[in-house]
This record gives sequence, C-alpha cells and structure tokens, in this order.
Amino acid sequence: MHTYHNARAQPSPQFIAAMSGRFCSRFSTAAAVCAHHGKDESSLPPVPPDAVLFAQTTAEVAEAVKLCGSHRVPVIPYGTGTSLEGHLLAIHGGLSIDLSGMNKVLAVRPEDLDATVEAGVTRKQLNAALHGTGLFFPIDPGADASLGGMAATRASGTNAVRYGTMRDNVLGMTVVMADGAIIKTGGRARKSAAGYDLTRLIIGSEGTLGVITELTVRLYPIPEAISCAVCAFPMIIDAVNAVIQTIQLGVPMARIELLDALAIKAINRHSKTELREAPTLFFEFHGSPAGVKEQAEAVQTIVREHGGMDFEWASRPEDRSRLWQARHDVYYACLGLKPGARALTTDVCVPISRLAECIVESAADVAASGMLAPLVGHVGDGNFHLAILVDTADSADVARAEALAGRLVERALRMEGTCTGEHGIGIGKQKYLVEEHGPDALLVMRAVKHALDPDNLMNPGKILPPR
Amino acid sequence: MHTYHNARAQPSPQFIAAMSGRFCSRFSTAAAVCAHHGKDESSLPPVPPDAVLFAQTTAEVAEAVKLCGSHRVPVIPYGTGTSLEGHLLAIHGGLSIDLSGMNKVLAVRPEDLDATVEAGVTRKQLNAALHGTGLFFPIDPGADASLGGMAATRASGTNAVRYGTMRDNVLGMTVVMADGAIIKTGGRARKSAAGYDLTRLIIGSEGTLGVITELTVRLYPIPEAISCAVCAFPMIIDAVNAVIQTIQLGVPMARIELLDALAIKAINRHSKTELREAPTLFFEFHGSPAGVKEQAEAVQTIVREHGGMDFEWASRPEDRSRLWQARHDVYYACLGLKPGARALTTDVCVPISRLAECIVESAADVAASGMLAPLVGHVGDGNFHLAILVDTADSADVARAEALAGRLVERALRMEGTCTGEHGIGIGKQKYLVEEHGPDALLVMRAVKHALDPDNLMNPGKILPPR
Repeated sequence: MHTYHNARAQPSPQFIAAMSGRFCSRFSTAAAVCAHHGKDESSLPPVPPDAVLFAQTTAEVAEAVKLCGSHRVPVIPYGTGTSLEGHLLAIHGGLSIDLSGMNKVLAVRPEDLDATVEAGVTRKQLNAALHGTGLFFPIDPGADASLGGMAATRASGTNAVRYGTMRDNVLGMTVVMADGAIIKTGGRARKSAAGYDLTRLIIGSEGTLGVITELTVRLYPIPEAISCAVCAFPMIIDAVNAVIQTIQLGVPMARIELLDALAIKAINRHSKTELREAPTLFFEFHGSPAGVKEQAEAVQTIVREHGGMDFEWASRPEDRSRLWQARHDVYYACLGLKPGARALTTDVCVPISRLAECIVESAADVAASGMLAPLVGHVGDGNFHLAILVDTADSADVARAEALAGRLVERALRMEGTCTGEHGIGIGKQKYLVEEHGPDALLVMRAVKHALDPDNLMNPGKILPPR
Repeated sequence: MHTYHNARAQPSPQFIAAMSGRFCSRFSTAAAVCAHHGKDESSLPPVPPDAVLFAQTTAEVAEAVKLCGSHRVPVIPYGTGTSLEGHLLAIHGGLSIDLSGMNKVLAVRPEDLDATVEAGVTRKQLNAALHGTGLFFPIDPGADASLGGMAATRASGTNAVRYGTMRDNVLGMTVVMADGAIIKTGGRARKSAAGYDLTRLIIGSEGTLGVITELTVRLYPIPEAISCAVCAFPMIIDAVNAVIQTIQLGVPMARIELLDALAIKAINRHSKTELREAPTLFFEFHGSPAGVKEQAEAVQTIVREHGGMDFEWASRPEDRSRLWQARHDVYYACLGLKPGARALTTDVCVPISRLAECIVESAADVAASGMLAPLVGHVGDGNFHLAILVDTADSADVARAEALAGRLVERALRMEGTCTGEHGIGIGKQKYLVEEHGPDALLVMRAVKHALDPDNLMNPGKILPPR
C-alpha cells in the first residue's frame, strides 16, 4: 500500500477566518467537499485538502494564493479531478483551488485560428463553443479534462501524432505565481523569440510553479474529409510493425491507436461492440477527400503486408463517434474486467524504433506476472499504457502491480524513452526523474522551483522527489 | 549611434595563463581573432571579446566555463556569427567560445526520424549528411547558421509555417550550465511529460542560461512532390490578403513568403533575375503529387481573386533552388541598394488577422520616413522584416532608422504581436521586453536567470534589460 511520508500542518484558524470572510460560501472546509477534491483517477490513496475554494476570477485566485503565502498554506489547483498520477492529492494539506467555475470561453477568433478560455473550460466545452465556426481543438486525452489541467500536465492523447501536445498548442497563458503576481506568458503571435519561454516552463509544471487561470490555444479547420478504420492483427507485433512503417513513411495520420486483445474484450463488454478480440489498430485520417483516400490506400497496403484482418471503415460521423467513444471509454471498460479494482496506469513513451521490442517484452512480463493489464497506446508517438488492475486493499497485489510498472519504466528508460509520455510525474513517477534526466538536470529543475516558489507552497510534493 | 553603457573588466593574467596552459593554440587573445568574434550581421557596433576558445568537446566547454566562473569572466557562445540582434557582442568583455569546430553529425536515425549533432553543425551541413536517407531538416533561417545558435535564438524562417520553429524541432540537448555542470535535457521519445521542460527553457535563452553543445533534432521525409510558384500583385495589401485567406482555409503550405517591390528590385540586381518589380509571393507546396496539385489549385483560386499576376511555376529542382537562393540572398541583395550601408533588420510578428493593417501602416511609415527599407516576410506566420538601410557613420540616419524600427514594434505590440518573431532579443530589443510581457513576467525571467546564473556570467547584458 502506498504511504505518504509528508509533514502536514493544519491551516491556522486565522487563515480559515480570512478565507471565509473573503469568499463566503465559495470557501468550504466541509469533509465531503474536501474528500471530493482529494481523489483522482489514479490508484493512489486519496488525501483530502484542508479546504476548497471555488474560484471565479483570476483576481480571486491571486488573492487566495497571497493569503496562502502569508499563512504558509499549500495551494493545489483542481480542474476536473481526472489526473492519473496523484497531482491533486493534498499530501501536505492545504487549499484546493477548484477552477471548474472559471468556465467561460472568453474569445474565439476564427480569423486567427485561436481561442482564449478560462482554465476550467473542458475540451468538450470548448469544442461545443466552436460549433458552427468550422474549427476544432484537437487535443484529446480521453477524459473530458479542463484545459488548465491539460496544460499543467502537458497532456496529449489520441490526436498528438498529427496535432502535437498541449506544449505545441498553447500560445499564451495567464498564471498566478507563488507571490500572487498575475503574469501573462506568450501572446497571440504564432511565434515569438522574445525572452524565456515561460509558457513552456509552466506547461507540464503540474501546479508546482503557479496556477494557470486562462489560456489562449490554437484551433484548426475541421478537415474537409475524415475517415476512420479498424483493423485486427494476428499478433501484437504485427500491429506495432504496421504503425512503425506508417510513421516512417510520413503518412500524416490524425490518430493511430493500438489496443491489445484484452482491451478489446473490455470494450466489447462495456460498449456492446462486437470487435474481434485480437490486437487492433484504430486509425483516423484527416484531409481533403483525395488526401484521405491516398493516406488510407497507403495504410491499407502496409496493413495487408503485416497480416491485418477485417479492415473496416467508419466514414459516417455516427459510426466514427461510436468507435472513438468506445476507445475513450477503455479506461472505464478495463476497470470492469476486475470489479472493485483500481487501475495503476503506466505511461511510457519510447523512440518508435524500439516500440515493438518494448511492447513485446512488456506483454511477456504482464503474462508472467499473472496480472490483468490491458494495453492501449498512442503508438504513433511511441506512447503506450498498461492499465494494471489492482485490488488496492491487497498490499501484495499492489506490490506486484508496482513492480510490474517499475519494470516497464526501467525497460523504457533503457530504450531511451521517458517514464511518462503524457500523464506527468505527480507523485507516482518521482522516483524515475533522476534516472531519466540525471542528477544535474534535476538540480536545475530544483533551482527553478526554488526561485519561483521559495516557500514550496505551490502543489508541494509533486514532480520533484524529496531530497 | 548606439553606445553601450556596460562595465568591462579585463580578465586576469591568471585566467589567460590557465586557459593558454589548458588549450594551447586553440585559445587566442589575438586582436584579429577577437575582432572576428565581436561582430554579427546586425547594424550594432562590433565589440570584441577578450579572448576566444575554439572548443572541440562538451567537456572542454565545461572546463572553460568553470575557469570563467572562478575568474569571473563572461562566457559568450559563438556559432557562425550570423546573429541579427547583437547576441555575440562582448559588451561586458569575456571569453567567446567558438563552437564551429564541434561540427560532427553524431547519429542519424532514419527509423526514428531524428539526428544528434554537435552544436556547431550548420543546417546545410546536416542536410548534406542526410543525403541519400530520404530525410531532411526543415528549419531554414536564411543564413547557414549553426544548429546550436539556431536553438539559442529560437530561430525559424521560411518553412516554419509548416514545420514549426526550433522550439518544435529539438527533442533534447546537451547544455553546459553556468557552474560547468553538463546536463541532458529532453530525450529521444517523441513526447514526454517528465518534469520541467528544460529544453524549451534553454531554446531562445540566447546563451544567457548555458552553452548548448549537442542537439537531437527531428527530421522529416522529403516530400514525394515539391512545387514552387511566384506570383506578383498590384498592391501589397492584395498579396497579404491572399496569404491570410490561404492560412485561414488551412492549406498546409510549406512556405509562403512576401517580398515588396523594393526587395524584388534588390533581388533582380543581385541575383540577375527578371521578376516583375511588384509585391510578390513565393509559394512552396509539399505533399503527395495529388496533394500538391490540390494545394496549388486552391492557392491559384485565392490568388486570382486578389488580382495576382504572372503565376509562374518552378517544379524542376534547379528552378526551385534558384528561386529560393534568390529569396535567401535578399538580405545581401538589399545591402546592395545602398552601398556601404548596414541593415537594421526588424522582426515583428502579429496575429494574422492584423497582418494587412500592420504591413500597410508600416509601408506608409517607411514612405514618410524617406528611408530605404525593403520588406520581406514569413507572412504565413504573421512575421515580417524591414531591412532598414542605414549609414552607421551618420548618427542622424541611425536615429531615423531606430525611430522607424521603434514605431514598427509599438505598432505590432498594439496589435497583440511580438517585438521579435525569430531573431531574438539580444541587445536591440531589450527595451520592448517589459512592454510585451509586463513587469511581473519579466521578474519571473530575472528570477530564473538569477537561479541558474547567480554571477551573471552567461552572455551578460543580453535579453534582460539593465535594472
């Protein structure tokens, strides 16, 4: 069982009184409210904050952060609670700042292909607001996460192979720093060489450097033609090799997702689909009608060479939606394979040339471990997940799951990969940070953290391992 | 005339002796060598360093930086000397570390579409090394700059509209920090959410946080089909509006460059071309044969609606090369318009919706100023340059040029743009940094700088304005 070794001081009555006085009913210390803000979708044990603020403006966030600073109370930003690495667990106590009420789409500028939103706007809310403009926001981590949270964790997901990650799609942000200063990073120009890239410094900083309150993001024209396909393979290595060849040929895939037989089985049960229970690739093609046709033909040829079976098309919007909904529900579908279990979700990413080797070795390791651990992956990026189903009440089961996850990370690092492609470090991956980046790079990260948050109040205990 | 108000201490004889002892003939204090390393391609007055080291390895750079640290000697990285904002001028004296001897392509991995190079490798050297692999490195700032210098200044250029900037195309780096520590940033995975994005923090930091010694960069398959076109327009606004419509429709242009009539005149003289002396767009299309045809048809339709004339194709490689060589030589061609002059090169970038307004107002301002200032631009990104030709010996001429450049920046900032799209801040743009980012964001940049370079020895006097 995971235990946290962290000092935790209660906020002073003066702090509680000051916050209550200022924010009235939008500030709460109720146990149920705190409990709700102390758990995410990881298998880590929940840890509630001492209090929650439902913020409505950037100025309010700044006020709260200043109050936290003067009372030495940790600050934990909260979006939709869909983190997979314990980012929002209040392991040092503190104030959870819930940004879900900051859900206004402030501006959509079709002529510049950008939009400015408050940090609590979710990706689906943004896409709903774009209805009728002919534009869409592509980043899609599966969960309907808030854009602030997605930026904080450098999220990506199924579309990243074509459209990049949050790193590539945020033009600028409003951020409340540890001293309560409100800064604007970046801007609206498509590119800039004006000073340090504070936007990219904050993206992926998981709330440890500041609280993101607004973002300007890139939008894209909805492609003239979109087409999807599903294809099963005899062996997982055949599917992976088909992906590798597709990427190496430069086919501009919009999505290329791998699910192993167990993940397909979970989907069939959960989403009432009737897919063949074999390793399967989901494809999506974006472009002009001729372009999509060309891409699809190229991919069909590759797939055939690798033993692909039952290549099935889904060109109608409703069929595509059903397909991707099933893919997105795979996390919940997998949980259904072992009732009562939580998923320890791994997230390695390796150079594409090592992907087949990494997946095959990992599949053998899963089989040897006796764990249930369906595999799904954004394989066009070399990124894949095991959802290791674990009975969190059984410490031996947890230990086995953690050992399996650990071996996967070690394997990925040996193959010049990363311990996390898109979920972030949070609590769960801290032990790999030195191994991945080296002690000196970690010292640079610590120096940046100390410079911007000298009292260690911004989401303390996340990213940087305890010394 | 630009004057520098900076303290400058001579390095101690002990430092000189230590460096000479360690590096022998690769360390030089010769006046001619120092003079060569104290000038760039900006109109700023040259300032030579006190000494130059021709480094051959990362370990040597680390040794030199440590020696500089213990003797309080500033460190200035030097690539090819093609900076446009005074980045390499030794305004506080110090050691220029010339990385041009670190010119080995360390690895090309076609299967992963990446390559690892020493920082002194230039973009043309890299592309020569890629010959026969079917891959290319797209970032192209015009000058045959070193990849280390291009990363340090967050360079981009003609291909950025399709392939992004250095920010998007560096996967990882080896960097020597102010204390001599050698860190690895990023890695070889296509994406990662593992900790602070030190890669993006160093990219664009202009040598003020560390010396880049190696880079791993992304490569792309050479498109199956490439086609170029040139088209003249009656008025500059027609050309700009054609660009805006092209971008808004999402046509995936590889290059879309604007040159005004004066720039075309300069090119005709310099490169012996016979282009119509009118505002002109240069286009390049990358894709499959059908894709390129589709893009070209879409653009031809748009161009026709905006009064485009003489749409001319260049599909043969030699014609394309001649065309782009002429475009790349435009800087030198423009200098030929006013013999003996230097160019004060501006570099604003605005949201595309403001591009027409910004260019038209700027053209009127140039006309009113009486200066010769041809306009060229990577207009697909909203980025354009005036090359204001100036007699640097005539202080009234310099003052007029600086005032014109200043008005252009103010105009761009009013339009939510940036003072530099790709050249960097260096010395010349420091005065706009607060206006663009605000005082609090600048304090964050200063805190990062102080944390990583507490003695202010890494390229001091660049990016951050004096307090």
